Amino acid sequence: KPLLSRFSPPQLIALSFASAILLGGLLLWLPALHGQNPDGTVRPLSFLQALFTATSALCVTGLNVVDPSKDFNRLGQFVIMLLIQVGGLGILTLGTAFALFTRRRVAFSERVRVAQQVSALSAGDVLNLVRKIFLYTFVIEGVGALLLAFAFVPRYGLGWGLFYSVFHSVSAFNNAGFALYSDNLMGFVDDPLVSGVIALLIILGGTGFLVQLNVLSHLHNPRRFPLVPHSRLVLIMMTALLAVGTLAYLVLEWNNPRTLGPLGFGAKLLASFFQSVTTRTAGFNSLDYGAMGLPTLFVTMILMFIGANPGGTGGGIKTSTFYVMMAAAWSMVRGRRDVNLFSRRLDTETILRAMTVSTLSLGLVLFMFFLLLLFNTDPRILFIQLAFEAVSAFGTVGLSMNTTPLLHANQQIVLIFLMFLGRIGPLTFAVAFSRPESDGLIRYPAEKEILIG
Amino acid sequence: KPLLSRFSPPQLIALSFASAILLGGLLLWLPALHGQNPDGTVRPLSFLQALFTATSALCVTGLNVVDPSKDFNRLGQFVIMLLIQVGGLGILTLGTAFALFTRRRVAFSERVRVAQQVSALSAGDVLNLVRKIFLYTFVIEGVGALLLAFAFVPRYGLGWGLFYSVFHSVSAFNNAGFALYSDNLMGFVDDPLVSGVIALLIILGGTGFLVQLNVLSHLHNPRRFPLVPHSRLVLIMMTALLAVGTLAYLVLEWNNPRTLGPLGFGAKLLASFFQSVTTRTAGFNSLDYGAMGLPTLFVTMILMFIGANPGGTGGGIKTSTFYVMMAAAWSMVRGRRDVNLFSRRLDTETILRAMTVSTLSLGLVLFMFFLLLLFNTDPRILFIQLAFEAVSAFGTVGLSMNTTPLLHANQQIVLIFLMFLGRIGPLTFAVAFSRPESDGLIRYPAEKEILIG
Ligand SMILES: [K+]
Ligand SMILES: [K+]
Repeated sequence: KPLLSRFSPPQLIALSFASAILLGGLLLWLPALHGQNPDGTVRPLSFLQALFTATSALCVTGLNVVDPSKDFNRLGQFVIMLLIQVGGLGILTLGTAFALFTRRRVAFSERVRVAQQVSALSAGDVLNLVRKIFLYTFVIEGVGALLLAFAFVPRYGLGWGLFYSVFHSVSAFNNAGFALYSDNLMGFVDDPLVSGVIALLIILGGTGFLVQLNVLSHLHNPRRFPLVPHSRLVLIMMTALLAVGTLAYLVLEWNNPRTLGPLGFGAKLLASFFQSVTTRTAGFNSLDYGAMGLPTLFVTMILMFIGANPGGTGGGIKTSTFYVMMAAAWSMVRGRRDVNLFSRRLDTETILRAMTVSTLSLGLVLFMFFLLLLFNTDPRILFIQLAFEAVSAFGTVGLSMNTTPLLHANQQIVLIFLMFLGRIGPLTFAVAFSRPESDGLIRYPAEKEILIG
Repeated sequence: KPLLSRFSPPQLIALSFASAILLGGLLLWLPALHGQNPDGTVRPLSFLQALFTATSALCVTGLNVVDPSKDFNRLGQFVIMLLIQVGGLGILTLGTAFALFTRRRVAFSERVRVAQQVSALSAGDVLNLVRKIFLYTFVIEGVGALLLAFAFVPRYGLGWGLFYSVFHSVSAFNNAGFALYSDNLMGFVDDPLVSGVIALLIILGGTGFLVQLNVLSHLHNPRRFPLVPHSRLVLIMMTALLAVGTLAYLVLEWNNPRTLGPLGFGAKLLASFFQSVTTRTAGFNSLDYGAMGLPTLFVTMILMFIGANPGGTGGGIKTSTFYVMMAAAWSMVRGRRDVNLFSRRLDTETILRAMTVSTLSLGLVLFMFFLLLLFNTDPRILFIQLAFEAVSAFGTVGLSMNTTPLLHANQQIVLIFLMFLGRIGPLTFAVAFSRPESDGLIRYPAEKEILIG
């Protein structure tokens, strides 16, 4: 029996991702990829720092213990871009391809499950799906890079200008949040071209591939291809969360002299929209999160935890999970028998799955946050900074109150695990490494007399 | 049609409680109840401060914007004790009695629901139930006061010694957390009698009335009265959480020079156990929470949010809710069809109810915490202090990092609402004030293609 077929698809996903992180860490540890000081000496980089950077790139998070614009040379930055691309094309695509390359035919039920994890819409042929995802990714990234070239080529010339354009397009579409500037994109806070294109790439990447396929087909032939309920739900949720986020930044930071304060109305609006988009787990920032007010940081943490749409490059518990939790609670309050959505009834399995994902995610974030507190050795680091860091790592967001470089090695290791678990999803991980149980023949009588709340 | 019969039981519960708070606030505003300065002048107390104290007493929370040991005289303290007793005997008992006094016969189905909210075990006769609860409460409080008298009578003489004994017994059994000392019970950190009796009263009050009835019947005649699953579940959960809490305080604070550090091993153990008991939403403290480490404060917040057993005087989402959430997630991970407990299957309604209570509670705490951040005017108050305050108010715990007296009036109003909603439960409140919906004849087809997580 070949080695690979001993593993279940969730195990393959987790193991292949862990292997990629380890290989990426070793690769980024090579001194040939590191930046130089002005005096020509190579800047030192520990294996932990290289591993952290590789995890952050492959998990498309964007948290950094080093400064990629200085601590890596162009080759190193190119490798980081490749890692982002590998990570962004996703664990699921990878795991599927992995299974196919071993010439073991994936059983139909497994195909369905994998395809459903990419998007809930249809099973289809897995290999064909993977091809489509690759093509779609490269087309969007190419168009994005072309548009960004109008900003970067005039600055850096054709060669490096294109490099900057491709790097930031790849980083944006994959919701990675890596930028080639020490202050991320704060230099472009009032630049509508760069801010706008990057925001658009983030949204496209975070919408979910098959939702977009559904939207495109629908625009082409509305009668034959209706917008399925999943597409309608996540598009509505995404729009609503973007609007709430924009409004929150605008109102809460309006007068803050270190963020929106000095900007004109147009730039205030652009910066608020950009920051709202970026909390959809992209992790770029054109404002300084270390300078924001506590209410703004709180709203950011909530938005980061909810995250992007499923089946895209974003993280978090996902907009659909959040909606189902809210809708189920609302139905219970109103005394309804069912949870309805667009004249459909959500089945119990979907609700229980949303509950499980939320519970496991919250439990994971809280546990890792506790470890960050426990391993803290710097009394200047505040509770909120570590809370922000934990939510950001879990949601593979990458925003930080400028805390990451100050962390102790133990805390960096905690974040590495959290980024990894946040990317593959706590449910996938838990399913991968728990012994599955057959239901057996006995079904116990129902117990209704447990008092709740 | 009489006025009262226009309201549903949840509405009666919420309205009667709100009226009691308003009346209590007016009562405590009377200068005749206020303490005196050494020069004989009456200490000033605003209506908001009186309302806050009345809410804290009636919701058996124990948060204080004033110092009850100085800002109220003995009469005022006696009134506070009465308010605690009224609050602790519970919103449900009150609401039921209220309905009975209006001579409107409560319909059987409503009786069942009310009785089930007191405990999940049996319906029985509501009036009989209320009588039993009163008797049980006064017997336990009496015994508690007698035991405490051994500590307080030698200190304050027979009269005031008994007053102190009764006050602290009532405050402990009702999980109120009010004490007649400016530093709460920090003077009794190594006193096994006071710490022990108070811890025992807290546990008895927080266990749930019918669970204890079940235990007593079971001890008397095990064959005829088995321990029902609900009793077994909450007893196990309570023991486990007490053990986890004790261990956490012991390990995390062992070397803290401002908490456990200076104490001997026995006193360390006593103080850890006492603090673990108190997070079961009682809110007394024999250590200074303002001096504890961040990991300890984090664990405390988690324990406060989980809270006590249902049907007792404690708050929080309740131990059974927490268990059901964990068990449901675990079943999902293991791929089981059912969530089992003691060879019984939890019905879907129970699981959905646990999910709703958890979601609404978390949403409520987060929203109120956001308001606390938004209304903050004192830059010295930290994020963690307001987070701690919000969880403490929701769980009607009453522990504080010494923040409450520093809060702005707006923040105090937020806490008043949070204590109120935490006490009657967000689900009860939501049900009370949302329009119930009949299911109608249409049941929509099931929608399974929503991608979660
Ligand atoms: K990211
Ligand atoms: K309390």
